Amino acid sequence: MKKTLIIVAHPDIEHSTVNSRWIRELEKYPETFTIHELYRSYPDRCIDKLFEQELVECHENLVLQFPVYWFSSPPLLKQWLDEVLIYGWAYGVHGNKLRDKKIGLAVSTGISAQDYSQQGSWGITLPEILSPFELTAKYIKAAYQAPFVFYGIDSHAAYDDEALRKIDRSAQNYIEYLQQIFR
Amino acid sequence: MKKTLIIVAHPDIEHSTVNSRWIRELEKYPETFTIHELYRSYPDRCIDKLFEQELVECHENLVLQFPVYWFSSPPLLKQWLDEVLIYGWAYGVHGNKLRDKKIGLAVSTGISAQDYSQQGSWGITLPEILSPFELTAKYIKAAYQAPFVFYGIDSHAAYDDEALRKIDRSAQNYIEYLQQIFR
Repeated sequence: MKKTLIIVAHPDIEHSTVNSRWIRELEKYPETFTIHELYRSYPDRCIDKLFEQELVECHENLVLQFPVYWFSSPPLLKQWLDEVLIYGWAYGVHGNKLRDKKIGLAVSTGISAQDYSQQGSWGITLPEILSPFELTAKYIKAAYQAPFVFYGIDSHAAYDDEALRKIDRSAQNYIEYLQQIFR
Repeated sequence: MKKTLIIVAHPDIEHSTVNSRWIRELEKYPETFTIHELYRSYPDRCIDKLFEQELVECHENLVLQFPVYWFSSPPLLKQWLDEVLIYGWAYGVHGNKLRDKKIGLAVSTGISAQDYSQQGSWGITLPEILSPFELTAKYIKAAYQAPFVFYGIDSHAAYDDEALRKIDRSAQNYIEYLQQIFR
């Protein structure tokens, strides 16, 4: 069975807590997941489009993992979408390379789950805010999966034991999420 | 009265039709609008954060103008948001530099207005898809204005007279939109 490609887009992974912890968890399953960190691969932000397309083609499924900044992804992931998912490959004539592939999302956000609700201070849920990714998947006829979310991360905080345990648990839940959607 | 800053983010403005036509229209009002093209200013994609912050501070209001790719902005505009709208300047302690400034959006999209509706093939409106920009404005306490949209641009098409007239009209409507929200 082909592996799942995890595209990670974190502009400062050295100082991340959730995303780096998730990567360490994914690394325990090298036969199942290929971890591809965009900001490490392209420090000059020049994406090798053909390499990326081949990488996607060699994998069964795709996960986009990133911290939510300003209610969307970091820019290099958007650049990846714009430059890799192009006419004739992802859509249009002969453009079917992601058709029926499952696409999952794994994101962290500083805002709490309570605030991200119809009744919360933002009046909208995070899955709704991430609709551009869902619509992109729909456009290329991929099978979008409801996102896995870590809410309420405080990137300026010192982490006490309880916070670290919560992050540890989320790493295990992330693997379970992946096992469930890609079973 | 201070001018309005128009931040244009088009990765290939030479081959654009709507966005370049809009720029030509804006250029007729040099006392009213400052046009700032991100992809021309930063071909290496290294944004001068302090320069950008001063530019915003020198202007009364702000417009983000871009083509909608994959249901969002081109990546350099997202990078601008992430790197310029930072803690201590745009939000947080002393972070009030955009408070009460009006923020408008001017976007072009290949999808028709009919398809971008609750009953259309996407089941969602473009203003809803652009909610990350609205929420960002809300977060920094700016006054978000409903976007000005050009629907149904076909970037691969040859333009007949009617299409060109439609684009010309949109340029005038764009100026009227700006005059209305910033009056």
